[in-house]
Amino acid sequence: MNAPERLPHPDFAALLAAARAPFPASRKSYLGSERFADLRVPVRDIQLTNGEVVSVYDTSGPYTDPGVDIDVRRGLPSVRGAWIEARGDTEAYDGRPPVALDDGQKGEDMARLVQLRADAAGLQRRPRRARAGQNVTQMHYARRGIVTPEMEYIALRENGRREWMQQYLQDSAREQRLAGQSLGAAIPQVITPEFVRDEVARGRAIIPANINHPEVEPMIIGRNFKVKINANIGNSAVTSSIEEEVEKLVWAIRWGADNVMDLSTGKAIHTTRDWILRNSPVPIGTVPIYQALEKVGGIAEDLTWEIFRDTLIEQAEQGVDYFTIHAGVRLAYVPLTAQRRTGIVSRGGSIMAKWCMAHHRESFLYEHFEEICEIMKAYDVSFSLGDGLRPGSASDANDEAQFAELRTLGELTQVAWKHDVQTMIEGPGHVPMHLIQANMAEQLKHCHEAPFYTLGPLTIDIAPGYDHIASAIGAAMIGWMGTAMLCYVTPKEHLGLPDRDDVKQGIIAYKIAAHAADVAKGHPGARARDDALSQARFDFRWQDQFNLGLDPETAQEYHDETLPKDSAKVAHFCSMCGPKFCSMKITQEVRDYAARQGVPDAEQALAQGLQDKAREFQQTGGQFYVPIHPQA
Amino acid sequence: MNAPERLPHPDFAALLAAARAPFPASRKSYLGSERFADLRVPVRDIQLTNGEVVSVYDTSGPYTDPGVDIDVRRGLPSVRGAWIEARGDTEAYDGRPPVALDDGQKGEDMARLVQLRADAAGLQRRPRRARAGQNVTQMHYARRGIVTPEMEYIALRENGRREWMQQYLQDSAREQRLAGQSLGAAIPQVITPEFVRDEVARGRAIIPANINHPEVEPMIIGRNFKVKINANIGNSAVTSSIEEEVEKLVWAIRWGADNVMDLSTGKAIHTTRDWILRNSPVPIGTVPIYQALEKVGGIAEDLTWEIFRDTLIEQAEQGVDYFTIHAGVRLAYVPLTAQRRTGIVSRGGSIMAKWCMAHHRESFLYEHFEEICEIMKAYDVSFSLGDGLRPGSASDANDEAQFAELRTLGELTQVAWKHDVQTMIEGPGHVPMHLIQANMAEQLKHCHEAPFYTLGPLTIDIAPGYDHIASAIGAAMIGWMGTAMLCYVTPKEHLGLPDRDDVKQGIIAYKIAAHAADVAKGHPGARARDDALSQARFDFRWQDQFNLGLDPETAQEYHDETLPKDSAKVAHFCSMCGPKFCSMKITQEVRDYAARQGVPDAEQALAQGLQDKAREFQQTGGQFYVPIHPQA
Repeated sequence: MNAPERLPHPDFAALLAAARAPFPASRKSYLGSERFADLRVPVRDIQLTNGEVVSVYDTSGPYTDPGVDIDVRRGLPSVRGAWIEARGDTEAYDGRPPVALDDGQKGEDMARLVQLRADAAGLQRRPRRARAGQNVTQMHYARRGIVTPEMEYIALRENGRREWMQQYLQDSAREQRLAGQSLGAAIPQVITPEFVRDEVARGRAIIPANINHPEVEPMIIGRNFKVKINANIGNSAVTSSIEEEVEKLVWAIRWGADNVMDLSTGKAIHTTRDWILRNSPVPIGTVPIYQALEKVGGIAEDLTWEIFRDTLIEQAEQGVDYFTIHAGVRLAYVPLTAQRRTGIVSRGGSIMAKWCMAHHRESFLYEHFEEICEIMKAYDVSFSLGDGLRPGSASDANDEAQFAELRTLGELTQVAWKHDVQTMIEGPGHVPMHLIQANMAEQLKHCHEAPFYTLGPLTIDIAPGYDHIASAIGAAMIGWMGTAMLCYVTPKEHLGLPDRDDVKQGIIAYKIAAHAADVAKGHPGARARDDALSQARFDFRWQDQFNLGLDPETAQEYHDETLPKDSAKVAHFCSMCGPKFCSMKITQEVRDYAARQGVPDAEQALAQGLQDKAREFQQTGGQFYVPIHPQA
Repeated sequence: MNAPERLPHPDFAALLAAARAPFPASRKSYLGSERFADLRVPVRDIQLTNGEVVSVYDTSGPYTDPGVDIDVRRGLPSVRGAWIEARGDTEAYDGRPPVALDDGQKGEDMARLVQLRADAAGLQRRPRRARAGQNVTQMHYARRGIVTPEMEYIALRENGRREWMQQYLQDSAREQRLAGQSLGAAIPQVITPEFVRDEVARGRAIIPANINHPEVEPMIIGRNFKVKINANIGNSAVTSSIEEEVEKLVWAIRWGADNVMDLSTGKAIHTTRDWILRNSPVPIGTVPIYQALEKVGGIAEDLTWEIFRDTLIEQAEQGVDYFTIHAGVRLAYVPLTAQRRTGIVSRGGSIMAKWCMAHHRESFLYEHFEEICEIMKAYDVSFSLGDGLRPGSASDANDEAQFAELRTLGELTQVAWKHDVQTMIEGPGHVPMHLIQANMAEQLKHCHEAPFYTLGPLTIDIAPGYDHIASAIGAAMIGWMGTAMLCYVTPKEHLGLPDRDDVKQGIIAYKIAAHAADVAKGHPGARARDDALSQARFDFRWQDQFNLGLDPETAQEYHDETLPKDSAKVAHFCSMCGPKFCSMKITQEVRDYAARQGVPDAEQALAQGLQDKAREFQQTGGQFYVPIHPQA
């Protein structure tokens, strides 16, 4: 799995085939719904060697279902198309005519572009939009009391197939000792579709699901649901190709990305997006200002509301599920950054700051915010209100620039909600541990519990090459505190473009952070997978231990480096201690011994049984080989 | 740096030479003392391209000083020998005669053992011990008001060469905003030798420094000092060689291990220890019960106080700086583990549990604790009171077994302190985030602020292959809360023996955790290195950014993968965004523009200057290439 990414011309078909292989001992299965007959919610069932089946949340889409034919030139089958049509509030239309500039400035390699577009020909769809006067957001439906199929899907998905967990969660004394600290979250024992609806209605959760992205498997982002993670992919002016990007998507969701942002900034970004959207079962987010900037040749000052607005429609028609919009970078806040150590580090933020200064005008995003809402609600694109002034170093954490923007994002949230537009709020960046809580508190206060979506935060600045770790620490903490989605950081952060192994490393670090947060919050059943794995570890079911982990292949590979023989997979000892020293083996012996006494109470068993054992051993106690040298 | 560890027969000399190479742009230098003329405290000075010098704590010992000749068969030069002799309270003596069993059971490969011992011939030293009636612990000196050279050394070392920091720490508004949250720590702005003495006297810090380990560069472990990390090395019954182990030591301290534990359990462990101790500038800890168990053929029931005591003396004479002793695993606590998911996972703990049950007797470690103290104080070996009942899974976290043992460790701390024996307390294991604080609180309460030394904790169980990350999250948090030393976890945890790259990965993850904790606690100046790196990042001083990081080579390698040309090292853009999109470049333009207006106040400059800029751009604002498609 490690070699291919360094090849100059990776074999995309081979890589994709590898990324499609189901995890070891895993089988995709689907949960059905009584309310909606055509609803099939994917889970991954892991078959253990002792007969148990552990069922886990599955982000990988149809790719890991061997029964699904995949042709990236035709795109994925529709999941939501019939539901959208059945609502009767949308219409298909011709859409915005494509123009050459959608794929970047003229004067580029047109031959290559023609080829790329030809590859995307089978992916063109006639766009839909809300009929005149209609609002097609999930929030709008929720506020009218409607439980959509998307909400039902999400309820089933969040609960998962929980039956297997009961054996791990039935000890009430243990459950009391381990009870989570929700820190203000209100997570029910069972997620009902009505709960999903109510959370969306009050803005505490969003379902990013553009009506033009029917391939999406609905998922939810909110503090009372499982913490989600986002992975960024994207080409750039310097490197990358579309083929790589689509494969990166499949790779990212294989390892657990719940959302993917396409941050492409180079050429052919419209066409790249066709490829990604039509092949993505997870919501796709973008930063439309990047494309708008391409259209004006990279000159921030040349941006206009009109070209930005046109880009929003272009992308909404393609099916982008959420837009990062840096509408909180107001003219008055820009000077607040001048004395920062690292100024403005958000690309979108710096573009808007430059525009505001060049024109000495209020941000056109801020001024046209209600018009943006009109577009969002016609396609159900969600806002991800961008943190253009997030701190780029510990030195700039929690400063007035950052918090002034955050308060404005709260104000804009209220505007968006007035239009029933789903909204989440972007946050952190570089924030030392002791300053994290204030971020969450300010966000909850000013943004009224709209889902928080944070980059990291990175807790220190001195770990280039390891920022996935420096930031997983902050991510786990802020996830526990209430952040709903964690934007990953790869080991290449600050240094270069992530390759596929970097993407995997970043995702796994963030799955760890998200899961740690779920466990700490006391998300129902979150801990059961840990219990199943630890039980397998204790029982020396090595293969089950590997297969229950976040990366079975790596776990097995590491094990096999030291003890490669197959027999070691069932050995009742491991390579760290060898056969004589295994503490788990000793513990098991203790229990077996207690059990042999036939005394159900463990303490009593030990007290009785070990007196016998003491007798058995007491004669041998003095026979040693060494002369004892007494301390003088 | 990655290839050698996979070779079947690594070239030890070549690996060691590589591990000795100073970090890029780094130079070892030494701080002197006015009080003690022969005192030379190492620091690593990093020369930046802008003329600044950033000076950092250096654990790597003489190895990274090109002026020092190293011969691993002769051992390192003595640092403390003259100080110890000058105190006049110790005497050299013949010591315990070596016996064959010290290197393991008979019937092994004697030819190999003879060879290994011959390699250690030049490392034999005549041991010292306290004269009759004397107590030679640093705690004993401290309690008598004496500032030892070790304490002076530590004060200089903890402060470091701070002059360079001033430029980063002079903004009082920023310092106020970023002020740490000490959570009960009491860290002075400047560490004085008297402060070191007082902390040691009251047991809140320890200086692990056996009088028979004069090669050690003194360091301190306590909540009011920099958070330290420990790396474990050790051979095993299954694999490894002595040569590898010594090279692993040098490798571990290169990357920042403050302490190393030799957890060898295989053959030739006495001889391995000679190699490690004589070549180690950092304190070495061991778990003596491991060797004692080897001496009785691996049969826990056959252990006796006499053989254990003899092993303590054997190791104290060699120079081991601290002993992990699982004296808190009392007979009565063993049944408390029977219903655990993963029983007893500490090797030492399970050995003692088995012994207690087999004899149905109280632990001989507990019963002979005062006699152990007598040995400790004759050599100044510190206690690391072992957490034999630490939880091996989230499921077992914070249970009665764990906390009962912790309370006993607190009781034993009082006994040790009665003898002026330095003591730290081992803790965590597997503990979800929300249960970490209780561990720290219980430890502070029952162990009277004796330094806490925790493994991780691992916040989740489902990350085999990535447990360095799952545990770095917990380690950073508990370090912030007051843990003084963090025992690392490598990616191979639970799976296999760490190779040298795993050791490095574990150490770096833990340097991140320790530094994140120092920053959060507000350790004076801890943040300055972050500031220097972030400033370099902002200034596009790429080489400085790499060199200020925890792993300069990897940072540079990652950068070069995307932008390999030398010119990219000075380029004012980076590979993530390309030349057009660089947000830092844009921010710099903003500042330059403000500066050109000659208006010192940034806000005013922006307000004025950008009106001009607005005029300059306003004519061009409408000229675009695309037809705007209005939303219908």
